[in-house]
Amino acid sequence: MIATPLTTDLYQLTMMAGYFVQGRHERATASFELFVRRLPPHRNYLIAAGAASLVRYLERLSFSDDDIAWLRRSDALANVPNGFFDYLREFRFSGDLWAVPEGTPVFAHEPIVRITAPIAQAQLVETAALAFVTFQTAIASKASRIVAAAAGRPIMEFGARRAHGLEAALFAARAAYLAGAAGTSFVEAGRRFGIPLSGTMAHSWIMSAPSEAQAFADYCRLFGERSALLLDTYDTVAAARLVVASGLKPAAVRLDSGDLASLSRQVRHVLDAGGLSSTQILASGDLDEFSIAALLDAGSPIDGFGVGTRLVTSEDAPALGGVYKLVEIEERGAARRVVKTSEGKTTWPGRKQVWRVMPGGCAVRDVVSFADESPVADAVPLLVETMHQGRSTDVDSSLEAARDRCRRLVAELPQAVRTVGEETPYQVDPSAAVAAAIPDERTG
Amino acid sequence: MIATPLTTDLYQLTMMAGYFVQGRHERATASFELFVRRLPPHRNYLIAAGAASLVRYLERLSFSDDDIAWLRRSDALANVPNGFFDYLREFRFSGDLWAVPEGTPVFAHEPIVRITAPIAQAQLVETAALAFVTFQTAIASKASRIVAAAAGRPIMEFGARRAHGLEAALFAARAAYLAGAAGTSFVEAGRRFGIPLSGTMAHSWIMSAPSEAQAFADYCRLFGERSALLLDTYDTVAAARLVVASGLKPAAVRLDSGDLASLSRQVRHVLDAGGLSSTQILASGDLDEFSIAALLDAGSPIDGFGVGTRLVTSEDAPALGGVYKLVEIEERGAARRVVKTSEGKTTWPGRKQVWRVMPGGCAVRDVVSFADESPVADAVPLLVETMHQGRSTDVDSSLEAARDRCRRLVAELPQAVRTVGEETPYQVDPSAAVAAAIPDERTG
Repeated sequence: MIATPLTTDLYQLTMMAGYFVQGRHERATASFELFVRRLPPHRNYLIAAGAASLVRYLERLSFSDDDIAWLRRSDALANVPNGFFDYLREFRFSGDLWAVPEGTPVFAHEPIVRITAPIAQAQLVETAALAFVTFQTAIASKASRIVAAAAGRPIMEFGARRAHGLEAALFAARAAYLAGAAGTSFVEAGRRFGIPLSGTMAHSWIMSAPSEAQAFADYCRLFGERSALLLDTYDTVAAARLVVASGLKPAAVRLDSGDLASLSRQVRHVLDAGGLSSTQILASGDLDEFSIAALLDAGSPIDGFGVGTRLVTSEDAPALGGVYKLVEIEERGAARRVVKTSEGKTTWPGRKQVWRVMPGGCAVRDVVSFADESPVADAVPLLVETMHQGRSTDVDSSLEAARDRCRRLVAELPQAVRTVGEETPYQVDPSAAVAAAIPDERTG
Repeated sequence: MIATPLTTDLYQLTMMAGYFVQGRHERATASFELFVRRLPPHRNYLIAAGAASLVRYLERLSFSDDDIAWLRRSDALANVPNGFFDYLREFRFSGDLWAVPEGTPVFAHEPIVRITAPIAQAQLVETAALAFVTFQTAIASKASRIVAAAAGRPIMEFGARRAHGLEAALFAARAAYLAGAAGTSFVEAGRRFGIPLSGTMAHSWIMSAPSEAQAFADYCRLFGERSALLLDTYDTVAAARLVVASGLKPAAVRLDSGDLASLSRQVRHVLDAGGLSSTQILASGDLDEFSIAALLDAGSPIDGFGVGTRLVTSEDAPALGGVYKLVEIEERGAARRVVKTSEGKTTWPGRKQVWRVMPGGCAVRDVVSFADESPVADAVPLLVETMHQGRSTDVDSSLEAARDRCRRLVAELPQAVRTVGEETPYQVDPSAAVAAAIPDERTG
């Protein structure tokens, strides 16, 4: 991970210098909340992800001599007093971080992360906090829909090649697994995160061989019953007949192009007639939740799906409009809740908690209260203290825990909210106290 | 950059093991070409980017003892002979790489990168090659459109927070600058790539201050005439009046919400009437080429644009459907061109060159020939040998050179192709020899 303190926007550094000159950089304590103003099209919920990356980043955040030397030379900080650079030399993140645990379904207006820290610290980390959380949340949210559409059949994440670089591929694989994908093809993600690996063969394996039959036979000789043979290099159904004629017993075959509904039926028929009824059919090729649902609605005999591009880029909503907004500032012992009243971008002031109201174990609505309000009846709080004074707390941040949490908490959402084809809003209300503090929206 | 040899798909490693067992891993020489089958919606051309990252990756590619130990333990390679792991220990990329220089406009069917290497090597690097080139090309292509729409006004890339992680933010900033953006807000990109940095202030600077007037005054005191003041925290036009009343002389003001066409006119009027006619107006807030063109068509007095989310994610086409296809294989002295005939995915066989036909200095069409065909009349070849036997050649791979090239070569495209609002196809023809070798498209 690129984890220098310069992975930030220039204005964070100029504002830090400004706070320093004002003498408020460590004396004013700021609370910022990270949330989305609205859900992207088709999404009824988001799956929170990225807090683990953020915590690791914050724990390690410090300025090296090189970083400081480079900043001193930069035009943008030309008039900044020397004392500021001395401050950077001692800089560490010493704040508190509250986060919705990874894997938790969240909605618009709900803080996913809240940071309370000296204002210069809280300002510096905005860019990284948003980049980690909005990207990983976007991918986990898309993955959750795809997993739901597959209705119990495994989804394999095959998208590394179309991700936004190799680091994005790594965290997309993690987010997909967290949200219920069964595995990934990306080997580095398997190594770093313990995600089960999955793979078949590429067309090049077939095309480089003297014949398709030879390619199949050589692969099965080496990989035996784990082999998954790719059928569509030349003619899918003919390739299925070739598999039967060869006497090979592959675990699976993969279809990667053409009319997958029709081809899967034809291939199933050929395999069954040839005594390969236990050979599974995997499908891939520009799939997403909509095409998977359509294939299954059509009764396609497909046992698992490889999903790439549209998953790892969250193609129909590649960016969440996540924002990181100042909600409260405490100076000289006095706390002040703040709001922005920009047209269409009004914020909810104050440090907040999210309550999921669950009478009888099923979520019915959420309430966003101030952090210091009394608990909401029949509700569980979602934000958990994840860093205290710059150190990670003992919250279980493992990927497997997040994956279990996701499965459990998605199942507790109302059925209509989890249904892929319907846009069903879930109710999120401000508490009475928060509602009273929200200014009227400016309309221009 | 994450640059381990495990940043690949599992099947690349299983196929490598297969080639090893066949005895062909280093004896068969494969040529793969990376290209897109079709342009995304609205795009009339792409801007090639990512080759510099790929070359750096290939030069450093080797398996550490840890990498090999991990692979030996993996279930997926359980039956693979020991000799394969010994081979990995000595593995280096020793192939040739031909690439369209970064910044060059390219079209569908045109190889952007061609790798010719022992088949196991060429296979391993597919995932990284696609991830680098398709991502960076997607962003550069989007940026080129946004720069065109701004019609000479500077575009600042402000999107790090919405990129797919911090590495993606870094390479998105590079791709945007390459395609003509004037600068970036992402400090690490400024440091690593020498891109000019730009920034203003966030709403939190205003909200955390005792008053908006105090926030403006404190910022200008520190940053003087370079200051760009953000006007829309509470009321944009009132803030413009405040600037005038304050006597401050900021370089610019920024509008980040609301009806930018109307607000920019009102703010211009207030500034001009207050003697601040040299203070520029910058606009930001979910902008893209369409909204920028609309603002300028409406005569909005905006002097520069900050563009974030929609640029760094290429939001309307976040993934190029780039593929990396085997086109030729040479074994025992005999070369064989290969094709795939999958439905809708037929490839053009053989190692190819792209010729841009430019009678009189303006591009009129491209011809894709075999690499060993004679030059096309009035045309320049686009693919350049960028690595030879595993080493980078002396091709100028600097970012500034790529940026100059982009500006020059985009200007040589037909006017209609460079026009943002029109979908105008540019003609790309296979040479007669290539056309004769393309199989009829299977139609299912």
